[in-house]
Amino acid sequence: MPEKIVIALGGNALQSKNSPPTAEAQLEVVRKTCEHIAEISRRGYELAIVHGNGPQVGRILLAGETARDVVPPMPFDVCGAMSQGYIGYHIQQALRYALSVRGRNVPVVSLTTQVVVDRRDPAFQNPTKPIGAFYNAEDARKLELDKGYVMREDAGRGWRRVVASPLPQKIVEIGSIRLLWDHAIVITCGGGGVPVAENPDGTLEGMAAVIDKDFAAELLAEEVNADALLILTEVEKAAIHFGQPNQQDLDHLSLADAARYLEEGHFGAGSMRPKIEAAMRFARNYPGRRAIITSLDKCLDALEGKTGTVVTFS
Amino acid sequence: MPEKIVIALGGNALQSKNSPPTAEAQLEVVRKTCEHIAEISRRGYELAIVHGNGPQVGRILLAGETARDVVPPMPFDVCGAMSQGYIGYHIQQALRYALSVRGRNVPVVSLTTQVVVDRRDPAFQNPTKPIGAFYNAEDARKLELDKGYVMREDAGRGWRRVVASPLPQKIVEIGSIRLLWDHAIVITCGGGGVPVAENPDGTLEGMAAVIDKDFAAELLAEEVNADALLILTEVEKAAIHFGQPNQQDLDHLSLADAARYLEEGHFGAGSMRPKIEAAMRFARNYPGRRAIITSLDKCLDALEGKTGTVVTFS
Repeated sequence: MPEKIVIALGGNALQSKNSPPTAEAQLEVVRKTCEHIAEISRRGYELAIVHGNGPQVGRILLAGETARDVVPPMPFDVCGAMSQGYIGYHIQQALRYALSVRGRNVPVVSLTTQVVVDRRDPAFQNPTKPIGAFYNAEDARKLELDKGYVMREDAGRGWRRVVASPLPQKIVEIGSIRLLWDHAIVITCGGGGVPVAENPDGTLEGMAAVIDKDFAAELLAEEVNADALLILTEVEKAAIHFGQPNQQDLDHLSLADAARYLEEGHFGAGSMRPKIEAAMRFARNYPGRRAIITSLDKCLDALEGKTGTVVTFS
Repeated sequence: MPEKIVIALGGNALQSKNSPPTAEAQLEVVRKTCEHIAEISRRGYELAIVHGNGPQVGRILLAGETARDVVPPMPFDVCGAMSQGYIGYHIQQALRYALSVRGRNVPVVSLTTQVVVDRRDPAFQNPTKPIGAFYNAEDARKLELDKGYVMREDAGRGWRRVVASPLPQKIVEIGSIRLLWDHAIVITCGGGGVPVAENPDGTLEGMAAVIDKDFAAELLAEEVNADALLILTEVEKAAIHFGQPNQQDLDHLSLADAARYLEEGHFGAGSMRPKIEAAMRFARNYPGRRAIITSLDKCLDALEGKTGTVVTFS
């Protein structure tokens, strides 16, 4: 039986810090990323891909807000769905090619994916994710009154809307993902999924929220009974005392160690912390399986146990 | 064996002429549309859905062009992929609910879909589809020189970019569509698909072009061996002498009749003509099967042979 892997792609897999924030530049980066992913497939692993969408959905929202006098702006859930189409298109186009030059004609497809969140999630009491444009205090106040937005002052640069980052509860399209899994590479839960809440009447309702893509990937890994969760980021290994003289890279983390390091504040809230937490969740719910945090170019070595930070139950 | 149907949804299935061009208003229209589609599924038909995207991709492009000094505009192929995410999200959200109240828990999912076009398609010699914003003559000339756009003066309203409308040759994601078909309702080839051309090295390259969604739906119907192609539009039946005192609604069209009426110019180029042509193509390639043109609210009656314009081989 081939090993099943859910891959979570970080922002650096889609966009380079040194190139302009255009679709064309993204496609160049995605092509390189897909060389690595195709190589994983060639080695015989079965895989699904979850990607982030932070900068992309931010630009979609910003373009919409900037053009608001000409075209009605899209709600944030729709911006998320648009970013899934945009990024998924690039990945499936590039990955299909990277597979074909390796003689693998596996279907690759991206699915528009909704992920259910709980309206009672404590995150909704404390929205923290800034999205979209900067406003002056007066306009910010107007948006709060007119649209019910929560606006926060952002480090002296102006006011921005903030939204909640709730936990993913359920992948709405999981049935289709399972149908495709054995025979195709599925790109799903892009940007963590389009967040939706369940109404009492059974309808789903798009939410202005951001689901962390590492948590969505973890949920997907559970739902498809994956053997491993592979979280790709900019560093080869997670570390304690990161960026300090006594930095110590981590080869292996048990749940107990990980919890202690988290408690001690070793992992940055917007970067390594959610990855460690998602990895811990997988290791806790699937004792005997592994979550791996590593960089894109080390992913094969990491799958073979040669590098990366491996998080396991004990 | 259940009958397999490919449904092509026209613009009126997504947007009302009387409501604002917002995502919220679209979702209301889509909910009503999905009641009809769910009813088709409840009657035991297997189906896939192809939708148009003209007004939606136009607004995405226009927002991007308007905001171009703030955010780099997206290329047109990416705008198409974004519109697939946007519209697919609404349809799958609404259809899932409409199915669930009928006790049907069929997975519904939309796929980002690329459709191959031929660079030698004669349509590329004569681009006709206007897209995006209006420009003055000077800016239009600049876009022609700087970006290689083809610009046309549009009925005294200014200059607009025009792109080709080539025929669809191949659905890149057909493998995934086939994997899903028997067990799920697939939304695919949205807006006719994201047009891509095949390069000699095997890569695909997004094209600034518009594939007619009726032709894409027809190709899909062939590829999945569908029993019927159902093209939904604003009128219950196609007609000759449309809108004139001697208008005559058509119950049935043989290929020979259809060809004659086309020749006589009975069907409008941007509206009924491509539907008739797509229907003819299906009837020609699948003698014994039927293509039906009718309105959304008559779709069930039409499937049961009670109304609509049915196009068959003879």
